[in-house]
Amino acid sequence: MALSERIEIGRGERPAALVIKGVRVFHLTTGEFEEADIAIASDGVIAGVGQGYDGMREIDGHGLTAVPGFIDAHVHIESSLMMPSEYEKCVLMHGVTTCICDPHELANVVGTDAFDFYMNASKALTMDMRVRLSSCVPATNLETSGAVVTADELSKWHGRHPEAGLAEFMNVPGVLFRDKEVLAKLSAFDFIDGHCPLLSGRDLNAYIAAGIRNCHESSIPEEAREKIRRGMQVFIREGSDERNLDALMPLMTLENSPFLAFCTDDRNPLDMEEHGHIDRMVARAIAGGVSPLVAYRVASWSAARGLGLADRGLIAPGQRADIVLLDDFEKCSVRKTIVDGIPFDEIHYDVNALPDASSFKNSVKCREVSASDFTFDASGRVRVIGVVDGSLVTDALELDVASDDVLRVSVVERHGKNGNISHGFVRGFGLKNGAIASSVGHDSHNICVVGTNAADMACAVNALRESQGGFAAVCDGRVTGLLPLPCAGLFSDKSADEIKRDLRKLRESVRALGCILHEPFLQLAFIPLPVIPHLKLTDCGLVDVDRFSFVSPSLN
Amino acid sequence: MALSERIEIGRGERPAALVIKGVRVFHLTTGEFEEADIAIASDGVIAGVGQGYDGMREIDGHGLTAVPGFIDAHVHIESSLMMPSEYEKCVLMHGVTTCICDPHELANVVGTDAFDFYMNASKALTMDMRVRLSSCVPATNLETSGAVVTADELSKWHGRHPEAGLAEFMNVPGVLFRDKEVLAKLSAFDFIDGHCPLLSGRDLNAYIAAGIRNCHESSIPEEAREKIRRGMQVFIREGSDERNLDALMPLMTLENSPFLAFCTDDRNPLDMEEHGHIDRMVARAIAGGVSPLVAYRVASWSAARGLGLADRGLIAPGQRADIVLLDDFEKCSVRKTIVDGIPFDEIHYDVNALPDASSFKNSVKCREVSASDFTFDASGRVRVIGVVDGSLVTDALELDVASDDVLRVSVVERHGKNGNISHGFVRGFGLKNGAIASSVGHDSHNICVVGTNAADMACAVNALRESQGGFAAVCDGRVTGLLPLPCAGLFSDKSADEIKRDLRKLRESVRALGCILHEPFLQLAFIPLPVIPHLKLTDCGLVDVDRFSFVSPSLN
Repeated sequence: MALSERIEIGRGERPAALVIKGVRVFHLTTGEFEEADIAIASDGVIAGVGQGYDGMREIDGHGLTAVPGFIDAHVHIESSLMMPSEYEKCVLMHGVTTCICDPHELANVVGTDAFDFYMNASKALTMDMRVRLSSCVPATNLETSGAVVTADELSKWHGRHPEAGLAEFMNVPGVLFRDKEVLAKLSAFDFIDGHCPLLSGRDLNAYIAAGIRNCHESSIPEEAREKIRRGMQVFIREGSDERNLDALMPLMTLENSPFLAFCTDDRNPLDMEEHGHIDRMVARAIAGGVSPLVAYRVASWSAARGLGLADRGLIAPGQRADIVLLDDFEKCSVRKTIVDGIPFDEIHYDVNALPDASSFKNSVKCREVSASDFTFDASGRVRVIGVVDGSLVTDALELDVASDDVLRVSVVERHGKNGNISHGFVRGFGLKNGAIASSVGHDSHNICVVGTNAADMACAVNALRESQGGFAAVCDGRVTGLLPLPCAGLFSDKSADEIKRDLRKLRESVRALGCILHEPFLQLAFIPLPVIPHLKLTDCGLVDVDRFSFVSPSLN
Repeated sequence: MALSERIEIGRGERPAALVIKGVRVFHLTTGEFEEADIAIASDGVIAGVGQGYDGMREIDGHGLTAVPGFIDAHVHIESSLMMPSEYEKCVLMHGVTTCICDPHELANVVGTDAFDFYMNASKALTMDMRVRLSSCVPATNLETSGAVVTADELSKWHGRHPEAGLAEFMNVPGVLFRDKEVLAKLSAFDFIDGHCPLLSGRDLNAYIAAGIRNCHESSIPEEAREKIRRGMQVFIREGSDERNLDALMPLMTLENSPFLAFCTDDRNPLDMEEHGHIDRMVARAIAGGVSPLVAYRVASWSAARGLGLADRGLIAPGQRADIVLLDDFEKCSVRKTIVDGIPFDEIHYDVNALPDASSFKNSVKCREVSASDFTFDASGRVRVIGVVDGSLVTDALELDVASDDVLRVSVVERHGKNGNISHGFVRGFGLKNGAIASSVGHDSHNICVVGTNAADMACAVNALRESQGGFAAVCDGRVTGLLPLPCAGLFSDKSADEIKRDLRKLRESVRALGCILHEPFLQLAFIPLPVIPHLKLTDCGLVDVDRFSFVSPSLN
């Protein structure tokens, strides 16, 4: 019996399943260091912290510091482009042992099967991947998604999985104006994550009074401070595109620490490799003058308690043995991660238990396109989507169509619903030749293509049709780079290494076309997202987000 | 619909049910003050905090400071000697809007009916009285209790009330030595409160690893610090007898604040009137140099989160409108308490909804006694229970029976089980004449009587038999003071004012007998408790608590 074993181990009456010997434990409660052994029971729970514990297996912890496993409070795993098991391997290297995942991207393509997929994955993994139910599928009625998830479906799902909260409630106007379907969704859940960029004053009060507990969209300190004052947990986000740590670092005080958490939201595998994950956020915070107690609390304990998880976030008896062993405490350099009592390099995957993504293949259902599909008349002044490097917010520009770097952008409906192809103009990619296309196109995930000429745009879209999704670069009618993402057009079933290799090649191909953006495919993927200001293009047309309505590209 | 109303009020689209206008809100998140209106919806939830809210009713908050309602993290309401509705009235005056109650005393007399009683009371009250299920009834097998509550009964109860946690697990040896019944109890609950005075090292690890989350028995800082380090929530207790605030005040730092709470455990009505409640603990902490942010956090937010209550502890949208309005912030002087959105002086009790304690009457089932029942031979050296004013811990003295202030003490079984009468000696009461008796006798609540002569001891016991329980003082064969406690021999169904009046009279009567103790009936009531060191007397005999076995009073 687990309880009996824990008590026996705690008392030192029997050897632990695993002991980390002589490690310097950093206590997130008192802020003290303690030289101690950490004794772990066979159920992955810490049974004792102190002197003189013996184990059936022992890890030498001398010279290392132990902190609780990190928590990514909000992530779309699809953005890693990986299967959940590959994702787990990548983030465990960075000390992340719990993530709260919102299958919003997959759900927009395949509906509630997305919830099943990640729920099943969660069972097969060692890290704790907690699934939230995506609240806004589709995000708006200005686009064509692959699926619709109703309040009724969410309620039924929640009935079967009462532990699953509702994911980021991005339909802010729906809350404020008390849309019936929105109220039905909110009423069905106890735990609701938020998404309310720049919301303030009475509207913020109303949004929180609706039961929404947190927000990961704060980008300036006063915004975050108001949200904390109103009782929200503020998740400090560092995605591959949106990066808020530097701006919000002044908030990382001991007073505020219980009301903060870290999250990544959307982060691609190259970015993880090159810039780390939560570990790097901790290190940057400490380097920026934040006290280590605050930085490490925010990375684990604060997130856990804010998310209602009482069983993790401390190195103490009764807590999950999610432990990060650090070579350097202030630099947060991870030597080894113990997850649920298992050293991360010893996890064995039961291939049969891992979820199968094959049913998500063949999701790119658009017809074969030709250059004529991307040929349209334009002259004089036009509305142009101004892409800003490193931001999802676009400028709404008005320029002469012949201006420098004004390229064509189109969105091709790919769920087999209506065959829409919409057109607009974009500035900021800097392409001199060819075209690039992506079947990841938030949030409805139609194909977005930017190009210097119609023929290459058609070629890029057809390449994705052929590969069943992914990122493609085309030059002079030839595919020069391709990362296939055949699972729902969103992620790959290949290994992380293969994906990263393809991504690196693709990066080179796009640079060869003249592209000047740091993450061109991320920027491309967010052009169709009509919930982020100011000008966006969905498969239904050009959207003035500030007015939440369609506008013509032409200003003549 | 509640949700819709909250959103409308939050946005200022409709008047709130109640607005506290222009109050200075103290934010337990950031530590800031904010001059604001607090808008409350008709369901007792805060809908908005900010400027310009209007309400159907308004309270002028100018010149007052608003803090979240206080939480008593662990209390035996029986010790207030009052019915729950009278108790509520008393503590609301001190800003207490939530209490976690353990019906341990009543359960030891009447069994699981005690849970029903407080559960039903909880529904009829406005404050949130959360019932825990008493875990150790009886506390030991060294005494005769009125009832036994098995693991099986606890599990069934928990099945019907999944929100009810398990109350203070005082059977520490049962945990450490893995008693089968103890493990069955622990396994059945997610939330388990602790009780582990002076437990340390590996035994503390084992106790916490068994799933026990908090402890209210810490009396010295290093003890409390170790418990916090091991992940426990430490409840700082100020009971009428055990008082730990002064000793533990050094722990009240910003670092530690999330891991602390306040509780009263056992507090009688005169003490509440004369020394206040949680309000007074806050004031004393601030006067002692603790930062107000820490003191107020510990009084509400920290307790709430440690107890798993996410819906209170902040003045923010979506939180319960449990609000204390203070005249003086640093002195914590309560002007008015709002509980669940209702000003405390406007609560109307539905008499029919209040629980009925009449079935607990006639619980004193001992036979009529006479002087001969308290006459026994004693000479030479004897074991003497040394009572220490203001402490439940007794000294184990060895004295000549004729020494100064060595009085006779007896415990009379009163549940009609076996008619036991046991005898011993006690020092510290200072009685010169007469006898005092109590049907409150922790934890089995047999009658404990101390006297200068056998006739008065018999008279005192018979007086309690007549009154069906209570506290009695007798002098020269005459009852000189009596507080009847006819409900299970533990509490009264009279008003708080009547109880206090009787208590004051009784206090005078006991002083007239020469008694020198501050709280003689509390000290009397704890003489039978064989889980507190060092020498105690149950109805079964004299107990050497350190050896957990019976010993003879005589040393000859």
